[in-house]
Amino acid sequence: MIVILKSGVASDSPEYRQVLDYLGNQANIKPRIHHVTGTLQTVTEIYLIGDTASLNKSDVESLPGVERVVRVSEEYRIIGRHRDDHRPVGFEYNGVRFDQDSLHVFAGLCAVDTREHVELMLRALQENGQVCTRMGAYKPRTNPYAFQGHGKSCLPWVFELAGKYGIKVLAMEITHDSQVDEIAAALEQTGRPTGVMLQIGTRNTQNFELLKIVGRQREFPVLFKRGFGITLEESLNAAEYLASEGNRNIVFALRGMKTNMGDPHRNFVDFAHVPVVKRLTRLPVCIDPSHAVGSRERSPDGILDVFHVTAQGVIAGANMILVDFHPAPAKALVDGPQALTLDELPRYLEDIAIAREAYEKRRALVTKSRKG
Amino acid sequence: MIVILKSGVASDSPEYRQVLDYLGNQANIKPRIHHVTGTLQTVTEIYLIGDTASLNKSDVESLPGVERVVRVSEEYRIIGRHRDDHRPVGFEYNGVRFDQDSLHVFAGLCAVDTREHVELMLRALQENGQVCTRMGAYKPRTNPYAFQGHGKSCLPWVFELAGKYGIKVLAMEITHDSQVDEIAAALEQTGRPTGVMLQIGTRNTQNFELLKIVGRQREFPVLFKRGFGITLEESLNAAEYLASEGNRNIVFALRGMKTNMGDPHRNFVDFAHVPVVKRLTRLPVCIDPSHAVGSRERSPDGILDVFHVTAQGVIAGANMILVDFHPAPAKALVDGPQALTLDELPRYLEDIAIAREAYEKRRALVTKSRKG
Amino acid sequence: MIVILKSGVASDSPEYRQVLDYLGNQANIKPRIHHVTGTLQTVTEIYLIGDTASLNKSDVESLPGVERVVRVSEEYRIIGRHRDDHRPVGFEYNGVRFDQDSLHVFAGLCAVDTREHVELMLRALQENGQVCTRMGAYKPRTNPYAFQGHGKSCLPWVFELAGKYGIKVLAMEITHDSQVDEIAAALEQTGRPTGVMLQIGTRNTQNFELLKIVGRQREFPVLFKRGFGITLEESLNAAEYLASEGNRNIVFALRGMKTNMGDPHRNFVDFAHVPVVKRLTRLPVCIDPSHAVGSRERSPDGILDVFHVTAQGVIAGANMILVDFHPAPAKALVDGPQALTLDELPRYLEDIAIAREAYEKRRALVTKSRKG
Amino acid sequence: MIVILKSGVASDSPEYRQVLDYLGNQANIKPRIHHVTGTLQTVTEIYLIGDTASLNKSDVESLPGVERVVRVSEEYRIIGRHRDDHRPVGFEYNGVRFDQDSLHVFAGLCAVDTREHVELMLRALQENGQVCTRMGAYKPRTNPYAFQGHGKSCLPWVFELAGKYGIKVLAMEITHDSQVDEIAAALEQTGRPTGVMLQIGTRNTQNFELLKIVGRQREFPVLFKRGFGITLEESLNAAEYLASEGNRNIVFALRGMKTNMGDPHRNFVDFAHVPVVKRLTRLPVCIDPSHAVGSRERSPDGILDVFHVTAQGVIAGANMILVDFHPAPAKALVDGPQALTLDELPRYLEDIAIAREAYEKRRALVTKSRKG
Repeated sequence: MIVILKSGVASDSPEYRQVLDYLGNQANIKPRIHHVTGTLQTVTEIYLIGDTASLNKSDVESLPGVERVVRVSEEYRIIGRHRDDHRPVGFEYNGVRFDQDSLHVFAGLCAVDTREHVELMLRALQENGQVCTRMGAYKPRTNPYAFQGHGKSCLPWVFELAGKYGIKVLAMEITHDSQVDEIAAALEQTGRPTGVMLQIGTRNTQNFELLKIVGRQREFPVLFKRGFGITLEESLNAAEYLASEGNRNIVFALRGMKTNMGDPHRNFVDFAHVPVVKRLTRLPVCIDPSHAVGSRERSPDGILDVFHVTAQGVIAGANMILVDFHPAPAKALVDGPQALTLDELPRYLEDIAIAREAYEKRRALVTKSRKG
Repeated sequence: MIVILKSGVASDSPEYRQVLDYLGNQANIKPRIHHVTGTLQTVTEIYLIGDTASLNKSDVESLPGVERVVRVSEEYRIIGRHRDDHRPVGFEYNGVRFDQDSLHVFAGLCAVDTREHVELMLRALQENGQVCTRMGAYKPRTNPYAFQGHGKSCLPWVFELAGKYGIKVLAMEITHDSQVDEIAAALEQTGRPTGVMLQIGTRNTQNFELLKIVGRQREFPVLFKRGFGITLEESLNAAEYLASEGNRNIVFALRGMKTNMGDPHRNFVDFAHVPVVKRLTRLPVCIDPSHAVGSRERSPDGILDVFHVTAQGVIAGANMILVDFHPAPAKALVDGPQALTLDELPRYLEDIAIAREAYEKRRALVTKSRKG
Repeated sequence: MIVILKSGVASDSPEYRQVLDYLGNQANIKPRIHHVTGTLQTVTEIYLIGDTASLNKSDVESLPGVERVVRVSEEYRIIGRHRDDHRPVGFEYNGVRFDQDSLHVFAGLCAVDTREHVELMLRALQENGQVCTRMGAYKPRTNPYAFQGHGKSCLPWVFELAGKYGIKVLAMEITHDSQVDEIAAALEQTGRPTGVMLQIGTRNTQNFELLKIVGRQREFPVLFKRGFGITLEESLNAAEYLASEGNRNIVFALRGMKTNMGDPHRNFVDFAHVPVVKRLTRLPVCIDPSHAVGSRERSPDGILDVFHVTAQGVIAGANMILVDFHPAPAKALVDGPQALTLDELPRYLEDIAIAREAYEKRRALVTKSRKG
Repeated sequence: MIVILKSGVASDSPEYRQVLDYLGNQANIKPRIHHVTGTLQTVTEIYLIGDTASLNKSDVESLPGVERVVRVSEEYRIIGRHRDDHRPVGFEYNGVRFDQDSLHVFAGLCAVDTREHVELMLRALQENGQVCTRMGAYKPRTNPYAFQGHGKSCLPWVFELAGKYGIKVLAMEITHDSQVDEIAAALEQTGRPTGVMLQIGTRNTQNFELLKIVGRQREFPVLFKRGFGITLEESLNAAEYLASEGNRNIVFALRGMKTNMGDPHRNFVDFAHVPVVKRLTRLPVCIDPSHAVGSRERSPDGILDVFHVTAQGVIAGANMILVDFHPAPAKALVDGPQALTLDELPRYLEDIAIAREAYEKRRALVTKSRKG
């Protein structure tokens, strides 16, 4: 159960006190308070954990400071989309809006390698009007003897270059909480030339300690990848760890599931879940076509599978695309075979635009039919 | 290895004899002959099974009656798309063309129940300009005590009604070879008012005896559904059974895979494989959004998941859509909860048209860039 | 709901009539009658299908001819083991008893190839005191161009040889209902030198038409293999098809599930389900270690994986073992690499005896503790 | 490739220098040095990473200080069992020997709750002659609002009680590297009354940063659980992270795989992989029957499934059993429904003894047949 207070109710007001006293007197119920800061106002939400079935909704709603009460049926209380739930969706970070209506492309290098490659990539993005990118400094690899990423040493020059080419948000995977501090320090040191979205990879989807620590910081939004061997519900519960610690600026990413039923693709593409995640949660939904497909195969119509599955995600309403490019895929240290090349970038963006236009037409069709 | 004869080479000609003699003298090789009848001519293809590695391609190509020789790398030799393979794709049946470029919607009843429902369905299709439908008379059910379909008794009136409303092709699942005869008899008896595409369901994907018998008849084309617990390669090998017995008029259908990773959808939607099947084979590719999704849930944009995954299949080049409609889903005997209603038909078709238009724009983009 | 009649109640008696009349007057309920023939008497069971929730159990039990009533909670009514269900378990065929306490080894050839190999195999079995075997004449193969078995032509000499070497029950896979007749004819022609257990393979687990036809005959018992891409419940429902048509002489076989999580074994060994199937049903449970493991790898203790998983099945109470042997695995036409050799047969049987002895000690331990 | 130096070769000797110089001069090869401390001597192993195919094995073996050279084919070089690989297997910790021949039962509480329950558990273990246990202080839970374990606060009294009841090794899951320090500090503070085996749970199997940090410490051995959504090979590669950082005192635990094919068990029991892991690696293999089965269901023979799958693991050579007990399962805060009760402990141990005896007989059978 979520108790949403009226917007004017400050935490030192008598109404606020009265609500908390009331809830504090309920047996087997523990209130957990969240302050949600919007552009115009701050709203207080009180999450009740425990035996809420015995609570009378009307009783709580009749308390002076209470705006309304939402019964939550799902286990993911904060990120969930509940019945009669009109809480806000999405967030803004460094001037870029992320919600269930927006669409942003995060093209970039799976793993930072040379300064030259990074600069070629960023320049191409700027030339194509892009303000977001992906750049990996910390790489979790299946084999301990494989290249593990340049780590913190590359952060300063990567951030400076990103700023130079107008990047507003750079998605970067982290694999340990100490890396959050390293990223914050490097941003501070370089004068904050860009913004960073912390990415939690599929191998850490249920690394709950990492999620708690990342959830406690509010500086960076989080790109949370679905776990590849668990159910969607379990992945959403894991994302709730972030939110339950305070950070709600989360994007949920689909990246394919690990099963040989998806062969010859590297993973079983799961973008049919784009509308599902939008229905179950209030999170913007990202797709990762590169890791899902894992190759540069194309169908007889001449279109790469990576393009096809991107279009599939977009026409169903995806809000963000995380995609591997590389100026010289053959030289890439990680996942070269699946990377798109810089000369394919304009056409990729055009292909996305076609799919997005189709999505918008489809949505207009529904709106029209509802009015009609 | 496939030896394709020149179009003028008749089976009683000396060239024909010479080729067969030559191949017959090779150790450990067994020739299998297929006559492929096109609109203008008949071509003879000789499939060589066994130890073809020792055969010299040039030697065979130098024989008088031989047009060219194709080395096949995949196990599905006939349906496969091999390197330098310019064999024809697709087929025409009862005036309707099925290939990797066409798109047909087969909306209809999962299971035939009452005459009234069938007629309401067919009338709606005619009003919306459709000439294809799906109608199930034989239903394989998980539970032996569930409704198993009306069987052959309904065939005459179903076919007559189909003819009355201008249906050219009606897809109908069969679960035993005796049903092919029942269908043929009912069509004969009613004066062939419509055409039938025999559907092999996912539970019979590896029912090889059924495939052989269906493959031996040439009257009806076959809609072959992917097996839900096997790899794509195994399903394609199973489809090859049909072709190896002589019937190449096959459409390959994706219908979702059985794994709880696809929850809350009934099956894990696999339409990212649309371009894959088009690349690996020369078969038109069908999608079955109803069984894949299995519910009428919709995302916050107001669009049903069934619509979303249909659009995903179409924007990636799907050639056929098998979809459940019902005039009164609550009264449907099978799979009612996932059925679309008749008043949703026009919007569904419009939604498909948007996705198809997007696919065509995407293809034009590739063509342009290749020329540029 | 199952209504079990008193043993003396004949189908032309007034009690019988009264029960059927009573049940026939219930709305939305359809009775289905089974006559279960035991060694001493025949029992009539009436299965009620439909809305049985409204039926009063005591009312039915108070009818003159009724012995007792069992409410069934599961969908597999006949093969299921229900609460307070004391119906008999198992059956006898050709002098061999199959139930949840017995243990029989069916060692033999996956596929019949030469007369010499068959005879070598059978002689080894006789020398080791075995009266059961497996011999495949009809082989379903993933690839249409692979060897499909000798079919009916080999049946007469295979049956004669089986009889010569004292085989009582020979398990043989069938893939089409016509093969039941072929087998019956060959047995007839050769003077019934042996018995045959019809095997339904994993690719036909949901080939419901085949199950219905096999279920209608009572001559041969059925070895029913679990489907490799469906849940256990779905496989049990499929087995119920056999029983619902009248044939309850069924053995349920575990043969491993198809998923790469089981690598490097060919299939994911599922013998932990031995006690589960014994709990959910009244069927004897068979294990197929050869197809589950699919190789001749051994652990550092020198024991083959095939031996290890056999022991795992037996120590948990398996009732039958289907296992591939071959006098010359390198020459086997099907599944040679996984076959055991004839000289391994005595040690394999000894290994099984050790595991079986352990199972019996474990069972005695439980019995003792219950009494104590 | 692994270069194993002669036992007398110190790291400041000329032979040592010569070998390193030689290897250092090879292009594209990076040596990584491990000192393996045994009871009698220390051996130096040099792992060569990179393009070792070009290296001549004989050349390296002819260097003065080199004992022998092992070519490694698998990616898990240190934990792997390679051809002609006679490196030692297993380790001793706090007086308890862990290798591929030993067998230890770690019965205990999934999650520490009250002091009373812990003491009841430990007393029962002592009464039954056990010196190992499991006790969870840090619990990773799917839902962020579920009980997360008592954490470090309970460590001192848990360790003291363990010591009081003669526990030598206590397995305890950790979910963050800071917990290693907390455990070390609590042991230090309480005077090391017991030993701790750090457990890496299935959700952290690919939490590579945690593995690296745990691998760098040598104080505690590690119980490494297989990941439930990845292949066995990927899990073994992850275990190699521990070893590659220096800690080879690893036990590899099978705990069931996550797929609905294992229903009605909580996970798909994977104990057929016991001999596989013993073949692929030199690690002792643990089984976790409680989490694999997840219920207290029993088969008609009266034996619990947890007992059955334990026996299956043991008869195939398992070396360790991690199993949930609880004095009052209904009051357990985590996984109560699957826990065994204290009065079942003697019979559980007796059941294990029967299976172990069977395993030893099976091994003797193989040894005899090899000599014969």
